[in-house]
Amino acid sequence: MEIISGGVTAAKGFEAAGVEANIKYKNRKDMALIYSEAPCKAAGVFTSNVVKAAPVLWDKNVVSSSLYAQAVVVNAGIANACTGVNGYEYCKQMAESTAKELGIPVDAVLVASTGVIGKQLPIDKITGGVLKLVQEKEHSLHAGTMAAEAIMTTDTVSKQAAVTIEIDGTIVTVGGMCKGSGMIHPDMCTMLGFITTDIAISKELLQEALNEDVQDTFNMISVDGDTSTNDTLLVLANGMAGNKEITCKDENFYKFTEALHYIDETLAKKMAGDGEGATALFETKVIHAATKKDAKALSKAVICSSLTKAAIFGHDANWGRILCALGYSGVLFDPEKIELFFEGQEKRMQIYKDGMEVDYSEEEATAILSEPEVRVVVDMKMGDAEATAWGCDLTYDYVKINADYRS
Amino acid sequence: MEIISGGVTAAKGFEAAGVEANIKYKNRKDMALIYSEAPCKAAGVFTSNVVKAAPVLWDKNVVSSSLYAQAVVVNAGIANACTGVNGYEYCKQMAESTAKELGIPVDAVLVASTGVIGKQLPIDKITGGVLKLVQEKEHSLHAGTMAAEAIMTTDTVSKQAAVTIEIDGTIVTVGGMCKGSGMIHPDMCTMLGFITTDIAISKELLQEALNEDVQDTFNMISVDGDTSTNDTLLVLANGMAGNKEITCKDENFYKFTEALHYIDETLAKKMAGDGEGATALFETKVIHAATKKDAKALSKAVICSSLTKAAIFGHDANWGRILCALGYSGVLFDPEKIELFFEGQEKRMQIYKDGMEVDYSEEEATAILSEPEVRVVVDMKMGDAEATAWGCDLTYDYVKINADYRS
Repeated sequence: MEIISGGVTAAKGFEAAGVEANIKYKNRKDMALIYSEAPCKAAGVFTSNVVKAAPVLWDKNVVSSSLYAQAVVVNAGIANACTGVNGYEYCKQMAESTAKELGIPVDAVLVASTGVIGKQLPIDKITGGVLKLVQEKEHSLHAGTMAAEAIMTTDTVSKQAAVTIEIDGTIVTVGGMCKGSGMIHPDMCTMLGFITTDIAISKELLQEALNEDVQDTFNMISVDGDTSTNDTLLVLANGMAGNKEITCKDENFYKFTEALHYIDETLAKKMAGDGEGATALFETKVIHAATKKDAKALSKAVICSSLTKAAIFGHDANWGRILCALGYSGVLFDPEKIELFFEGQEKRMQIYKDGMEVDYSEEEATAILSEPEVRVVVDMKMGDAEATAWGCDLTYDYVKINADYRS
Repeated sequence: MEIISGGVTAAKGFEAAGVEANIKYKNRKDMALIYSEAPCKAAGVFTSNVVKAAPVLWDKNVVSSSLYAQAVVVNAGIANACTGVNGYEYCKQMAESTAKELGIPVDAVLVASTGVIGKQLPIDKITGGVLKLVQEKEHSLHAGTMAAEAIMTTDTVSKQAAVTIEIDGTIVTVGGMCKGSGMIHPDMCTMLGFITTDIAISKELLQEALNEDVQDTFNMISVDGDTSTNDTLLVLANGMAGNKEITCKDENFYKFTEALHYIDETLAKKMAGDGEGATALFETKVIHAATKKDAKALSKAVICSSLTKAAIFGHDANWGRILCALGYSGVLFDPEKIELFFEGQEKRMQIYKDGMEVDYSEEEATAILSEPEVRVVVDMKMGDAEATAWGCDLTYDYVKINADYRS
């Protein structure tokens, strides 16, 4: 596997664009398009929230019922959630105008929206944006970056990743982009994410690979515990790499899942580290847990704890809050047995053992907790399972951003 | 039922004190004592956190195994949690010195600690504090207030409540105090709380009344989703009112549970409204839910949502976040059917109906959301069950308080 530059346009046959449609934001791109020359197998995972945005309902139907998908159209600024029958109608019109301009069937168009809940889409601006997107789309890394920038809301940086793998001598590319900064909490998936690949693979295996991988990647991040109404992760595979189609779980399938995992994990970590107001990526790795389920619950409890997140912001080695969070995770363990470490780029230091703190240096701990990526390692001493979860610190800016998001 | 002044010293035979022991804080009271002239039936509910502080382990044993309890000694500043065998030994010494000074059995002494996790108690300061407490204890409202002030940590106000009821012509008093501001999240109970009453009641019924009532009161509040290692709620009943002992669930039992409920709910709301950094009490009432369990899950999801809490801080009618929180509560419902209202002191206004927002005035909504008690009413249109949950807004000060709590 080789890490390369780019995102959704890295793979063969994929074009993209990002344009200004003035939906809510002024003077910035707010609509994006991904288009594939060739029809794609599509897979998707969606929010588990009972309140699902109109585009989530639309996409679920396309992924499950359409023979293929060929384009994704996205807007930022308005989420088209809690918008009733009118909202679904606007979503449909967004797909229809995209289909018409591209000359493809309407049921081959996927739609995604992100932004404020409860407002209706300004459909004239949307259709105007679609026109521009189709005119400007191209197969270039630049176009991929334009698209990645256009889907941002409170994100401070755009998020892309791409890799190549070799399958039976054929180069296969997997690339992706995502957005997400607030209302981020693991449940199915937790943001908008779009992955494109030129691999030839059966639709069933594509969906299975995606379902499996989100459990360890996008479902292991949290910014604020709020599971959005719009969470959508889509994968489009157009087969243009020219490999023999993957139809069973052979060696080639696992090469692909490894590449997919890299893209998913990289994008997920970028999202957690760019959580609203965040100054640090906060990673918690639980090792030697009794079961994988336990390891996940423990690591997620720590990265979701408001008190721990605030302590990380303050570079304060308040490890008691980590113990506290482990303790209410729902997993049974003996607090006298477990061990706790802080881990920096260059150093791992033990903090807690035998039911109490060890004699550590506060100064060194503060130094580790001041790095841009803060890692806690918890050794449960119970078994062989492990899991990693990613979040961020809780800051003044999180409050600022969310106290008046709508204005 | 009559609401009266006072707290833990309102009932007959209860004395209290609050003194400076310099455990962590300077120039403020940080140790408290509750003492009853007569031996008490004791009931308690404790944190469900796997990591339990030493005094929680101690108290569970006293409540379950001792014939009676007669005193509670409390310190603020250090939680005596995650302190291993040494911590338990210090807890025992705290009970022993209290028992000795009061001339009562050590297994009649309950202990509670609150503050930073992981530090050992300075036992000399503790025993010095015990001495002063025993010297200064008295049966007066003033002494009750001193105790309520001494148990505070990040609380900004002390929290007391008291009522009287009449049982077969006998006046019975129930009073209580509590502390709690951060690390507050419903699970068994969520803070330190102490309730005293002069009622004569069997130990079994006292415990049963407590278990039942916390489900609708202390377990329905949240400040930050973090369930503490020290949560303790104790009720002491010394029988000195002189009523015929309540030994079955007769009319008198329900008079008592009504009084207990008032005290529990009042203290719980005081705690939520004084959540760390809070500027408003945030109440969510869910009506017409299919089941009580659903109503609780829905109302708690809303008051726990960081995004909703930040919007309340900003007086921003961002109702989509409320819908979103209801949607990930785990309860199934039809978003097109439910209705949403904001309710102020003088006015209830509808916000959402038929799957989308109604034509409401942003100005009026902002006015309601600027009141010191903000109430959301959610009508599920599904059944007869209802529940209310209490939280607070998420503010800059919450982050400030918790970014460097230990220093």
